[in-house]
Amino acid sequence: DGGGNYDVVNNAVIATPGPQNHRPQNASFRHSWEMNYQEAAIYLQEGENNDKFFTHPRNPKALAAYLFAHNHLFYMMELLTGLLLMVLSLCEAPAVPSLRLDVYVHATLELLALVMVAFELCMKLRWLGFDTFIRHKRTMVKTGVLMLQFVEAIVVLVRQTSHLRVTRALRPIFLVDCRYCGAVRRNLRQIFQSLPPFIDILLLLLFFMVIFAILGFCLFSPNTSDPVGPARTLDRPHLYWPLFPDVMMPAYSRNRWCCVFFIVYLSIELYFVMNLLLAVVFDTFNGVEKMKFKSLLLHKRSAIDHAFQLLVSRQRPEGVSLKQFDGLMRFYRPRMSARDRYLTYKTLNVSDTPMLSGEHWFDDLPHTTFLIFKGINLLVKSKAFQYTMYVVVATNGIWILVETYMLNSKPPPINRSGRTLCPVSFSVLSHCSPLVYGVEVLLKVAGLGPMAYISSGWNLFDFSVTVFAFLGLIALAFDMEPFYFIVVLRPLQLLRLFKIKQRYRNVLDTMFELFPRMASLGLTLIIFYYSFAIVGMEFFADVIHPNCCNTSTVADSYRQKNVTIGNRTVLLEGYYHLNNFNNILSSFVTLFELMVVNNWYITMEGVTSMTSHWSRLYFMTFYIVTMVVMTIIVAFILDAFVFRMNYSRKNREPENPEEENGIVFEVEVGRDEALATLELYKQTSCAKGPDCECLSLQHTSLVYQGRRSRTKSDLSIKMYEEEIQEWYAEFSRENLSENDQGLERVLDSPASDPPPHHDAPQPEASAHSTPPAGDRPPQPVTPK
Amino acid sequence: DGGGNYDVVNNAVIATPGPQNHRPQNASFRHSWEMNYQEAAIYLQEGENNDKFFTHPRNPKALAAYLFAHNHLFYMMELLTGLLLMVLSLCEAPAVPSLRLDVYVHATLELLALVMVAFELCMKLRWLGFDTFIRHKRTMVKTGVLMLQFVEAIVVLVRQTSHLRVTRALRPIFLVDCRYCGAVRRNLRQIFQSLPPFIDILLLLLFFMVIFAILGFCLFSPNTSDPVGPARTLDRPHLYWPLFPDVMMPAYSRNRWCCVFFIVYLSIELYFVMNLLLAVVFDTFNGVEKMKFKSLLLHKRSAIDHAFQLLVSRQRPEGVSLKQFDGLMRFYRPRMSARDRYLTYKTLNVSDTPMLSGEHWFDDLPHTTFLIFKGINLLVKSKAFQYTMYVVVATNGIWILVETYMLNSKPPPINRSGRTLCPVSFSVLSHCSPLVYGVEVLLKVAGLGPMAYISSGWNLFDFSVTVFAFLGLIALAFDMEPFYFIVVLRPLQLLRLFKIKQRYRNVLDTMFELFPRMASLGLTLIIFYYSFAIVGMEFFADVIHPNCCNTSTVADSYRQKNVTIGNRTVLLEGYYHLNNFNNILSSFVTLFELMVVNNWYITMEGVTSMTSHWSRLYFMTFYIVTMVVMTIIVAFILDAFVFRMNYSRKNREPENPEEENGIVFEVEVGRDEALATLELYKQTSCAKGPDCECLSLQHTSLVYQGRRSRTKSDLSIKMYEEEIQEWYAEFSRENLSENDQGLERVLDSPASDPPPHHDAPQPEASAHSTPPAGDRPPQPVTPK
Repeated sequence: DGGGNYDVVNNAVIATPGPQNHRPQNASFRHSWEMNYQEAAIYLQEGENNDKFFTHPRNPKALAAYLFAHNHLFYMMELLTGLLLMVLSLCEAPAVPSLRLDVYVHATLELLALVMVAFELCMKLRWLGFDTFIRHKRTMVKTGVLMLQFVEAIVVLVRQTSHLRVTRALRPIFLVDCRYCGAVRRNLRQIFQSLPPFIDILLLLLFFMVIFAILGFCLFSPNTSDPVGPARTLDRPHLYWPLFPDVMMPAYSRNRWCCVFFIVYLSIELYFVMNLLLAVVFDTFNGVEKMKFKSLLLHKRSAIDHAFQLLVSRQRPEGVSLKQFDGLMRFYRPRMSARDRYLTYKTLNVSDTPMLSGEHWFDDLPHTTFLIFKGINLLVKSKAFQYTMYVVVATNGIWILVETYMLNSKPPPINRSGRTLCPVSFSVLSHCSPLVYGVEVLLKVAGLGPMAYISSGWNLFDFSVTVFAFLGLIALAFDMEPFYFIVVLRPLQLLRLFKIKQRYRNVLDTMFELFPRMASLGLTLIIFYYSFAIVGMEFFADVIHPNCCNTSTVADSYRQKNVTIGNRTVLLEGYYHLNNFNNILSSFVTLFELMVVNNWYITMEGVTSMTSHWSRLYFMTFYIVTMVVMTIIVAFILDAFVFRMNYSRKNREPENPEEENGIVFEVEVGRDEALATLELYKQTSCAKGPDCECLSLQHTSLVYQGRRSRTKSDLSIKMYEEEIQEWYAEFSRENLSENDQGLERVLDSPASDPPPHHDAPQPEASAHSTPPAGDRPPQPVTPK
Repeated sequence: DGGGNYDVVNNAVIATPGPQNHRPQNASFRHSWEMNYQEAAIYLQEGENNDKFFTHPRNPKALAAYLFAHNHLFYMMELLTGLLLMVLSLCEAPAVPSLRLDVYVHATLELLALVMVAFELCMKLRWLGFDTFIRHKRTMVKTGVLMLQFVEAIVVLVRQTSHLRVTRALRPIFLVDCRYCGAVRRNLRQIFQSLPPFIDILLLLLFFMVIFAILGFCLFSPNTSDPVGPARTLDRPHLYWPLFPDVMMPAYSRNRWCCVFFIVYLSIELYFVMNLLLAVVFDTFNGVEKMKFKSLLLHKRSAIDHAFQLLVSRQRPEGVSLKQFDGLMRFYRPRMSARDRYLTYKTLNVSDTPMLSGEHWFDDLPHTTFLIFKGINLLVKSKAFQYTMYVVVATNGIWILVETYMLNSKPPPINRSGRTLCPVSFSVLSHCSPLVYGVEVLLKVAGLGPMAYISSGWNLFDFSVTVFAFLGLIALAFDMEPFYFIVVLRPLQLLRLFKIKQRYRNVLDTMFELFPRMASLGLTLIIFYYSFAIVGMEFFADVIHPNCCNTSTVADSYRQKNVTIGNRTVLLEGYYHLNNFNNILSSFVTLFELMVVNNWYITMEGVTSMTSHWSRLYFMTFYIVTMVVMTIIVAFILDAFVFRMNYSRKNREPENPEEENGIVFEVEVGRDEALATLELYKQTSCAKGPDCECLSLQHTSLVYQGRRSRTKSDLSIKMYEEEIQEWYAEFSRENLSENDQGLERVLDSPASDPPPHHDAPQPEASAHSTPPAGDRPPQPVTPK
């Protein structure tokens, strides 16, 4: 290969002939290299965050602002400001009773948060420069909303009362724009990209609705002389039939042939067009997902390319030396130790290290202890242990079911404070099972080592369920009623049984992998909920109450009356007044009920009867928005699952269910090499003191193991292996013309003369750094 | 290519040196060839029908039975018998009132039908032989069911009253087994193949249900002291929560934090596990669909191979002569004319005929007429005409909407018999529009020729809607009220507007292509419905009636009472007594309502309260079965649509929306060749008289055009082009060993010595015949 000029050649460290040997003005030169390292780190960061390069800082002032605005403290501030603004609606006008604040308090808080946002925007303006700032659409929208909110907050403060503030629905923008919400932004973009085909099919759906509405009107309207009956729902072409469960019944009761009409209509709408909707979105989603992966990958690659340009010196244009790499990493991952940086470099550098395994965390212990742990290790890894645990879990599960069943037939036991006890909480066996699980956890941790134990999703799951079980026991012992629910989480242990079968393992592994993405989709949904909740509160707060809506056809569902049955008076309750918009929490619950189409029309008709017909617009819009988001979620799960299945078909996975979690990087460091490295660090950069760790040198060689869990992009890289090569080729062909553009450096760089092979295939170190450095570096490395 | 030995070489017909020139015993020899033709035709048929070759007739007696049992008359008889048996349930015990028959009448009818089935089975036994008959599982099941039904029918006839005849639910077997229901059988097989993964995920779903049921029990059960309230639905772990809309409300009204529990539960079940269900089925379906296509294709291929072996003569082992092909086709497609057979042969034979187009059906007419038609042709094909029609349709649509809207604001006009008139039925413009459409249809038929017109699905759609519009006008003119619904179908014309956009065209074309498959899936669903309806009728007939179920929680939905509002008495009706199982039609409607989950639990609770808790089992089972079938339908639509989109991405389609429907085969026949063929036919096989058609010889060459619509398997062949070659190679490799097995001929064949290149790539004629002969031959050919 072409990377023969590295510092580490054949696992021997050679003192780097750094550029300082060749030039006299050592300090300024060193500074200039430091600037380069920093800029390279910024490029890597931009690649990772998918920031476009036109926002790259162009002068030292901008750089200072950039550095100020790009660290976790600042991000945290952004996030907290966004959250504060959103949480404020708990305390504003139609507030949750226990959290109500005075107008001047919440208005002041709001102004404070808005000032913070303004400050963040100013920093951004400094860093981007005015021109770029103007061009950046998202930032401009944010600025606009900020202005509006400012004015409104001041008005509220002056008038000492809230006016109709629908614009509060725009608040999520401040949250969405913050750095940590990148996934939510991507989701929103994907939703907008899926919209055009979605709307097309929605029009088809509406078309059939209108056609059938006219048809139904003609077929069923003649009976308008009756006060109730078909006329009730069919007196005008309703456009939302599929949402009304009982529209068919009155017409059906008059003429049995009416059902043909409804059956044809529902079959077309529910089972054909709705599926087409899903199909179209799925198809678009498929394409978008792959394109997104491609563009992210290429963006990362060009970021790495930019960084690479800054790191090579004139003497060695094909590769990056350890020194330069180390300099880069000091900026890119400030918290990484020198040892880890060195190991990362070695991992990226040596591509053909044989993977070593079978090393244990307890190798350094004295002999007897070693033997004990070795025994535990073998026990824990044995099939017999696994299946014993399955049997325990299954027995426990059956026991819980039996107890629950017995509880149905006899009166349940009651605890000290007069509450019934749960099936899982009163028998001896129930108290034993957490102990068994606890012992299992301890054995596993001891046998595998804490790091290896934690790296498996399944183990984490076991661990947390066991901890909950213990917490439950404590709650029971001290009779802490509100925490009873923890006790009941214990049956979740049964989920482990599903590991036995390959298909479940696939499904549940997919579930673990999907979790981050699902969470971000959930957050996206919550943002939509928030906006709708605000609008709902502004228009429908305190509209719904018990015994309201007497003029509507759904009055029964809101009625609360006392009925005398025999000699007792009982409150017969229509529960639908609970689905109201009286505060933001109620609104969320109401919207969730609307989403799962829980007698959707009762809520809508109730609100409509108390306000105006225009209210329907709100409910319709919400229905369509949730339909879009839900369809996308379905498409996402479908896509991820099918992708995963194809992946496992393509790369036959090992049979052992306990293994194969995460990606492992291993590096072997020879004794001599370790000593040399140590020496080198003392020589060059040991000024920073604590970063230098003494490598333990009692073995002739050390194996370091870095572990991280596998993400979807790892799978994608493996799936699209061949296509990725094509993309790279295509990308470098396209960039051939704009080659020189990439070299306009603002900071003057010591490597300002470009290396000759810019568009040739990337040298080893850079090419290999694509997955880990661009994506996520290996997690803290542990010696074994 | 290797097929140079054909009769038609370079478009010149050479008199076939048939085997009769070489052997003396002409008559017996001819007979032996006829037998070969017939057997080859049987092989082709078996390939087409996906019959396994072990059912191939093995002796002359079996052959006679085979021929008797394989023609449309027999198939029709099978179909009618099956239908009769199913339709009988309309007239049996809980009969539709107007169709009730006496016990002895319907029992006699049933016995008659069963005797017919028995006769059919006897024919099958004769043809298959006892051993094969026993081995054929479907036939054995059918025989068993037949016996049972026989005994039961006789018992009914003797006792003169029906007993509990749940076994009637097995009747669809007779329908499913008949030849025309092959698609339904395939669907059922696919459903059974998708079952294992489906059940796996269903278990996961149930697992979460049980966990949350126990959890819910523990959290909400303490309030059991109240007669109503949470205890109502939460007193025992209900396993079917997601189906109850209002389970959450009572608990929520007591403690607002309960909603967290329900939200978590519903999110997991509705939005995660249910989607996983779809994903797993979709994944399985994808694989199964491709495997099915592959096995069908390979089966067809080996059938064609068998047939090919029977048709080649010793002199020419690489190809099939016209004579042999003609002999084959006489058996394979008895109704095809000699000319068509010849043209089919030419199409299959000459692979590189340049496609000719631009020929019109009116080319033979006198000059002035020709010019007129040519003008119409150009007009009809012009963009202007298309867009004018779009404008007319759009105007018409807007008009209908305006009329409907106006109808809402003023009292509707009333016709002679006192009925209100529909928006589409009373204005002048509405009467005009069918005329415009009629003129358009006439122009198109005149301009394109009837055959070309009909070959487009869109034209067929236009045509039928226009015909309906005219029928509607007639219905209006003669005041035939029951047919009013026809008038109202007119807005369907608006669907044409969707053709303007590419995406809709794709979607709607997919719809047309999917239609046959959807119909067969619908039929499959109806068969499930039938079985469930029978079981429902046997157990729940006359259980539900107005004011029943007073002990249940859903009594309100069944109550019918007179309420005095002001000074009028109004009947307040709970309509749910209409969802009953009193006869098979009501049962179907009830089951449909259950399928669309229209307040599912009201029907279930009603029936349960009148019978026993075991009734729930019936409703659960039905719910799960429809879930399976529906998930498969969704997977099917998704798969078909994504496939189609990938196909159009892979093969860029022409932009003209009016073209590109169907597959066109064209053959050019030179004058000399035509004459020679004519001569040849007179010489050899003109004894059959009417089959020989005089070819019109006034042109120097004739172009014949055969057209058929495109099916999914055409698309599949094009999509999997490369893979198909692999499959072929693999298949022939596998068959190399069992080569000799395929040559055990029962009928002694003149070509009993195998041709040398059995496993070499198939000769032209045979390879090319795969799509049309194995699948569907080109439709009747028209000279142009």
